[in-house]
Amino acid sequence: MQGELKIQETTQRKPKPDTANLSFGVYMTDHMFTMDYKKGEGWHDAKIVPYGPIPMDPAAKVFHYGQTIFEGMKAYMGEDGDIRLFRPEKNFERFNRSCRRMSIPEIDESFVLQALKELIKLDRSWVPSAPGTSLYIRPFAIATENHLGANPSLSYKMMIILSPVGAYYAEGLNPVRIHVETRDVRAVAGGVGEAKTAGNYAASMQAQENAYGAGYSQVLWLDGVHRKYVEEVGSMNVFFRIGDRIVTPSLSGSILNGITRDSSIQMLRDFGFEVEERPVTIDELSAFAEDGTLLEAFGTGTAAVVSPIGEIGWNGKTFKIGGGETGEWTRRLYDELTALQRGDIEDRFGWTEVICSAETTQG
Amino acid sequence: MQGELKIQETTQRKPKPDTANLSFGVYMTDHMFTMDYKKGEGWHDAKIVPYGPIPMDPAAKVFHYGQTIFEGMKAYMGEDGDIRLFRPEKNFERFNRSCRRMSIPEIDESFVLQALKELIKLDRSWVPSAPGTSLYIRPFAIATENHLGANPSLSYKMMIILSPVGAYYAEGLNPVRIHVETRDVRAVAGGVGEAKTAGNYAASMQAQENAYGAGYSQVLWLDGVHRKYVEEVGSMNVFFRIGDRIVTPSLSGSILNGITRDSSIQMLRDFGFEVEERPVTIDELSAFAEDGTLLEAFGTGTAAVVSPIGEIGWNGKTFKIGGGETGEWTRRLYDELTALQRGDIEDRFGWTEVICSAETTQG
Ligand SMILES: Cc1ncc(COP(=O)(O)O)c(C=O)c1O
Ligand SMILES: Cc1ncc(COP(=O)(O)O)c(C=O)c1O
Repeated sequence: MQGELKIQETTQRKPKPDTANLSFGVYMTDHMFTMDYKKGEGWHDAKIVPYGPIPMDPAAKVFHYGQTIFEGMKAYMGEDGDIRLFRPEKNFERFNRSCRRMSIPEIDESFVLQALKELIKLDRSWVPSAPGTSLYIRPFAIATENHLGANPSLSYKMMIILSPVGAYYAEGLNPVRIHVETRDVRAVAGGVGEAKTAGNYAASMQAQENAYGAGYSQVLWLDGVHRKYVEEVGSMNVFFRIGDRIVTPSLSGSILNGITRDSSIQMLRDFGFEVEERPVTIDELSAFAEDGTLLEAFGTGTAAVVSPIGEIGWNGKTFKIGGGETGEWTRRLYDELTALQRGDIEDRFGWTEVICSAETTQG
Repeated sequence: MQGELKIQETTQRKPKPDTANLSFGVYMTDHMFTMDYKKGEGWHDAKIVPYGPIPMDPAAKVFHYGQTIFEGMKAYMGEDGDIRLFRPEKNFERFNRSCRRMSIPEIDESFVLQALKELIKLDRSWVPSAPGTSLYIRPFAIATENHLGANPSLSYKMMIILSPVGAYYAEGLNPVRIHVETRDVRAVAGGVGEAKTAGNYAASMQAQENAYGAGYSQVLWLDGVHRKYVEEVGSMNVFFRIGDRIVTPSLSGSILNGITRDSSIQMLRDFGFEVEERPVTIDELSAFAEDGTLLEAFGTGTAAVVSPIGEIGWNGKTFKIGGGETGEWTRRLYDELTALQRGDIEDRFGWTEVICSAETTQG
C-alpha cells in the first residue's frame, strides 16, 4: 500500500531549546513523517523529511469542512536512559476509530507505528529526560482536496510531528479549580465527541475562556441531552473518589475513550481499589461533597497524566474536595503511572516498549 | 486597523473553464483576498494577490483544534449584464457572529465587504451569466498559530476566494429524496450549530454518506436532545407547506440562521402566504403526510437557493410529498427569488446591490 518508508535527513539540525523552559507544544523537532492519500491509490509516499511548512491550497477541504483527526502520545526517557513508548498501539487504534467516524480512510496501524519509531530514533537527541518532561507525539490527518463541497475529501495528508515538552507540574502536583459549564456543550451522543477531531476543541474554547476569566483553570463538561451527567474535565477524563470507591463516567458516546483513563482504571484496581464506570450526575457529586464523602477528584490525560481537582464551582456555589489538597490515591496513581511510563519502576502491565536503548540514545 | 487595501494583479490570467460544465466549487478565479491577525496588532496586511497556495506550518492550530469559520454567498449577472451581490452585509454579520462563538477576533465588516467588491471587479470576467450560474464567494478565517495547545490561537488568516459555479438544476427544479437521520446528530443547543464552522460539516459526513448509499440525496437532521424536532436538510434550512400555511423550524440554537431562509420567509409573506416559525416534529410531519395536508417541502440555502423535497424516508417508511412533484409555492419562490438575485425583476426588498455595471463588466 504505502510502499517503503523513505528517509530524507536534514542537513541542518536546529538548536535545541533550554529543557528547563520547554512549555507545551511550542518547539518542534528536526524531522516529520508525512504520507498522502488519494482515492483509488490509497495511502502512499510515506516519508520522513526535515520539519517544515506544507503548501496548502486555500480551497483545501480541511479549512472549510473540518475533516481532520489527531492523536496525542508521548515518548519518555527515564533513569536508565532508554526511550520508551506507552501503549502506542492504543493511540493508532483510536486514530482509526476517529477516521471511521470522520469518513477519513484508515491507516495501516503497524506501518505507521514503525515509521514513528524511525522518526523518534532520528530525533532521539530531542527527547528530554528531566522528571516530568517527555517528547510529545502528534499524529494527525487532514483533508487536502481543493474543492468547495461538504462531502468527504478525495485526498488526505497524514503527518507525525514531535515536540519536547516540559513538566506539567513545575512545583509538584497542584490541585486546580474547575468550573461546571451550564451553557455550552462540548459534544453530544450521536455527535463526534468520541472522535479525536479538531471541531470538538474549537467548540470548547468559549467555555474554557469564560472559566479562565472567572479564575478557574478547567471546564467540567456536562452531557448535552440532560445537562446533568458529568462527562470530562477540560481535555481529560475525570475520576472521583467517593468514600472508598472510585467512580468515573462510563463511556456514553460523547466522551473520549482516554488511554490514561483505561490505564488508570487498571492500575487503581491493581492497587486493590474498587473502580466503578457509571453515569455520574453533578447533583450527586454536590451531595457527596456536602456530606463529606467526596474525598478526591482528578482528571486523566496524556498531557498532564493525572491532574488533581481541589475545588468545583457550580451555579455560583463552590465545593472544596479533600480540603483543596491533592488526595492520597490521586498522588499514588500519579507517582506510579509516571514512574512506569519513564521505566523507573517495573512494568507489570506490559504497557511500555523500549524503542531506543541508552547506548544508541547517547550515540 | 487593517490599513489600506493593497492590490497585486496577476501577470498571467488562467484559462476560463467551459461555463457549461462548471460544477460547484471546483475552479478558482485569478485572485484572492487575504488579511492577517496577530494578537496585539489586530487585523493587518489586507491585500488582493494572485490566487495560490499558502505555506502552513504542520503545527498550525487550524489542523488540530479546528478554529475556523466561513461564509458562502454569490454574485450574479443577469439579463442586464450588471453584476449584483445579494444581502452581502448579512453574510459578514453572520461571519462575525460565528467568530464570537469560535473565539476568533471579529473583522471590520464594511472594510471586508469593500475589499470583496474590489476583488470581484478584478475578476469580473469570471462571473458567468447563464441562467442558474453565478460566482460563488467563500470568505473564511483559520487559526494559524504554530502551537499544540487547545486554546484560542494568537494569529489568524482571513481570506476570500471566488469560484464560478454551474446551474444547480441543469434540467429544471428536481425534487429530491431525503433521509431522516436517527443515529447521528449534526449539532446540539449549546454547541456550535449556529456558527458556520468547519466541524459541523465534518460531523455530518457519515450520515450523508449513509443516506447516499441508501439512495437518498440529503439528510433530514433531528435535534440532538429529543431526537424528534426537525432542524435542517443537508446544509439547508427546511420549509413545509401544511395546508395553506408554511412552517419552518424556529431558530433553536442548533440551526444555522440562513440568509435564504430569512429572505424566503419575507418573500412568502409578501406573496400573501402565512409563515410560522415554530418547533416541528417528525411525527407531526408524518401525520400530515398521511392525512394529505403536507403539500410541499423544500430546503433553502445559497448554493441551491430553493430545493424541492419529493419524498422523506424515516425508520424504514417513506412518505411522498405533493406526489413527488415540485410544489406550486416552492416553484414560485424559486423563480421569483432567483430572478430577483439576477436583477431580472424589480427588487422590491432592496436586497441587491449592483457592484459592476454592464459597461465595466464588458470592458
Ligand atoms: C477530549 C479529551 N478527553 C480525554 C483525553 C484523554 O485521553 P488520553 O488519556 O488518551 O490522552 C483527551 C486527550 O488527551 C482529550 O482530548
Ligand atoms: C448548515 C447550514 N444550514 C443552512 C444554510 C443556509 O444558509 P444560507 O441561506 O445563508 O446560505 C447553510 C449554508 O449555506 C448551512 O451551511
